[in-house]
Amino acid sequence: MRLRSDDITTPCLLVDAERLDANVAAMAARTVDRAIRLRPHAKTHKSVEVARRQLAAGAHGLTVATVAEAEVFADAGVDDLFIAYPLWVDAARGARLRAVAERVRLRVGIDSGEGARALARHAGGTHPIEVLVEVDSGHHRTGVLPQEAGRVAEQAARAGLDVRGVFTFPGHSYGPGHAVPAADDEARALHLAADALRARGVQCPVVSGGSTPTAAHDTDSGLTELRPGVYVFGDAQQWELGTCTAADIALTAAATVVSRSGGRVVLDAGSKVLGADRPAWASGFGRLPDHPDARISALSEHHATVDWPHDTPLPDLGTLLRVAPNHVCTAVNLADHLLVVADGAVVDRWEVAARGANT
Amino acid sequence: MRLRSDDITTPCLLVDAERLDANVAAMAARTVDRAIRLRPHAKTHKSVEVARRQLAAGAHGLTVATVAEAEVFADAGVDDLFIAYPLWVDAARGARLRAVAERVRLRVGIDSGEGARALARHAGGTHPIEVLVEVDSGHHRTGVLPQEAGRVAEQAARAGLDVRGVFTFPGHSYGPGHAVPAADDEARALHLAADALRARGVQCPVVSGGSTPTAAHDTDSGLTELRPGVYVFGDAQQWELGTCTAADIALTAAATVVSRSGGRVVLDAGSKVLGADRPAWASGFGRLPDHPDARISALSEHHATVDWPHDTPLPDLGTLLRVAPNHVCTAVNLADHLLVVADGAVVDRWEVAARGANT
Repeated sequence: MRLRSDDITTPCLLVDAERLDANVAAMAARTVDRAIRLRPHAKTHKSVEVARRQLAAGAHGLTVATVAEAEVFADAGVDDLFIAYPLWVDAARGARLRAVAERVRLRVGIDSGEGARALARHAGGTHPIEVLVEVDSGHHRTGVLPQEAGRVAEQAARAGLDVRGVFTFPGHSYGPGHAVPAADDEARALHLAADALRARGVQCPVVSGGSTPTAAHDTDSGLTELRPGVYVFGDAQQWELGTCTAADIALTAAATVVSRSGGRVVLDAGSKVLGADRPAWASGFGRLPDHPDARISALSEHHATVDWPHDTPLPDLGTLLRVAPNHVCTAVNLADHLLVVADGAVVDRWEVAARGANT
Repeated sequence: MRLRSDDITTPCLLVDAERLDANVAAMAARTVDRAIRLRPHAKTHKSVEVARRQLAAGAHGLTVATVAEAEVFADAGVDDLFIAYPLWVDAARGARLRAVAERVRLRVGIDSGEGARALARHAGGTHPIEVLVEVDSGHHRTGVLPQEAGRVAEQAARAGLDVRGVFTFPGHSYGPGHAVPAADDEARALHLAADALRARGVQCPVVSGGSTPTAAHDTDSGLTELRPGVYVFGDAQQWELGTCTAADIALTAAATVVSRSGGRVVLDAGSKVLGADRPAWASGFGRLPDHPDARISALSEHHATVDWPHDTPLPDLGTLLRVAPNHVCTAVNLADHLLVVADGAVVDRWEVAARGANT
């Protein structure tokens, strides 16, 4: 992509709307083929315009991570939301949940009887809240062991909650070669958990999983719902994991060369634009889709230090370059707006409406 | 610190105003003792209230990283600003710089003749802009080699800029045992660079350096100005580097225990609150000042996974805990507000006025 620099003040985030639409359509087609409901995770884009595109392409609702994100998308008219997080609910958070549940179909994660009882106590009311029991499928973060899901489901049902099934996030898929075994772990854990619910006499119509790396691999998994997030934009991590190509990446940071010496150039997009995510297996702190051999060897708040390929002349000072963040979800959360680009020119500006919506 | 949870919706950032004031006063006293001018870096706090405290305690102006930060602090009435960054200035950025220079004493970094000429062309005018030549003292990011500083200064003077001296950021001080050698590198590089300016007949009244780790070590360095940033709050990195103690840390994230199992608890403050900075030498993704033996072994966007000390009972679900981010500058840049706490209660709310001010 060649950018017209007079439209752009760097650093900023650019969205290629054509690639975005292609990514949205490809994931929608993949789930339709498998008769699975798609509920994309909106924490990646946090923007109403992207959500509308996902819903128009056939998504059955959105996933969010926080009550504050649910509030933003409920305000925007999205009517089916799942907070895929084992919220700890006190009186204040309960009141906010009730207000959302009055307007939309709301589902919430739980991973303990105590959490379920707090949710029922503070958010229960005339608009019953559906819950899914979170299961640890190998990421070892939140979620109960699959065989414990029945007990938690029973406790939740006894507290008056409407238990609808189970969910997991196979986050251990984020590593080279990890996607297939993680998808297997996910399928096994969800099967066991669904059986554990039914063994206690609790129905389990919803079996929800998914991540961008596993989305192509969790066939025959018994999933009824998929919740990928990153696929919508792609990022340097997904490129390096082989989940997408450089050409699929729909969101990049525009950055200017501000300094050059030896074999390196320094760009004006740092960790306050790209985010500081840097898994050990990544080749650097982001990638340049138009210069795949360049490596971002260091990142400060306002500097990306790029080791330039030895056989290529260093770009001039003032050159505009595109950088794919390592982890697009944290990069988007740093920006107030996304600039929408077509044919190198800025054609629209989308608000990151749920930026910072962490509570 | 015991927190009253009914004042607080987690996750959020808390400032202990008493510790903040103590940190501000301690750095001010240290520079007064050495007859060095203090120009704190405002990229750490991005807030007018903190800037006012630094200036009231004797700071001679502020350092910022971007034109947008300069605009925020100029709007707030700060009248002496240094953009410690080798800006690449086009017509649009030049117009913004001129508008700031009309209101405040403005100094800008340069590290090339070409950059200096672009600055002079687009930002020159009736209010002359002062420049300092950036020198690489060992961090190998931006800046020229010390012996090249004279050439760049001469080119800048020829372009019509008002060259006032040299500056460096000894960023390689951010590592265990690195502070003393980095302070030595800084002093040597600045001496050489100042000599290089004078050898070309360019005056060098300003010799500007400093970082929080080196601030205690750069004695007899010839510095006339110090630009530390992080000292104002402290963070887990500085604690682990020995630059501050856990008790000195003035900014923490308040987080709630949302899940517990085995030897771990999961908190609701993740990388979208703490930032994802994680140097290889750090013990984890942040630290708990009130539980120094706990380790944050993994961080997702909305989860901090904490390995709890084996000999201590796991905290209950719903417990409020404080987390010191690894790098406070990036954590502050994620928040719209900081809650000011005294005696466990929220007493004020400061806007992060320059949040996201990257351009």
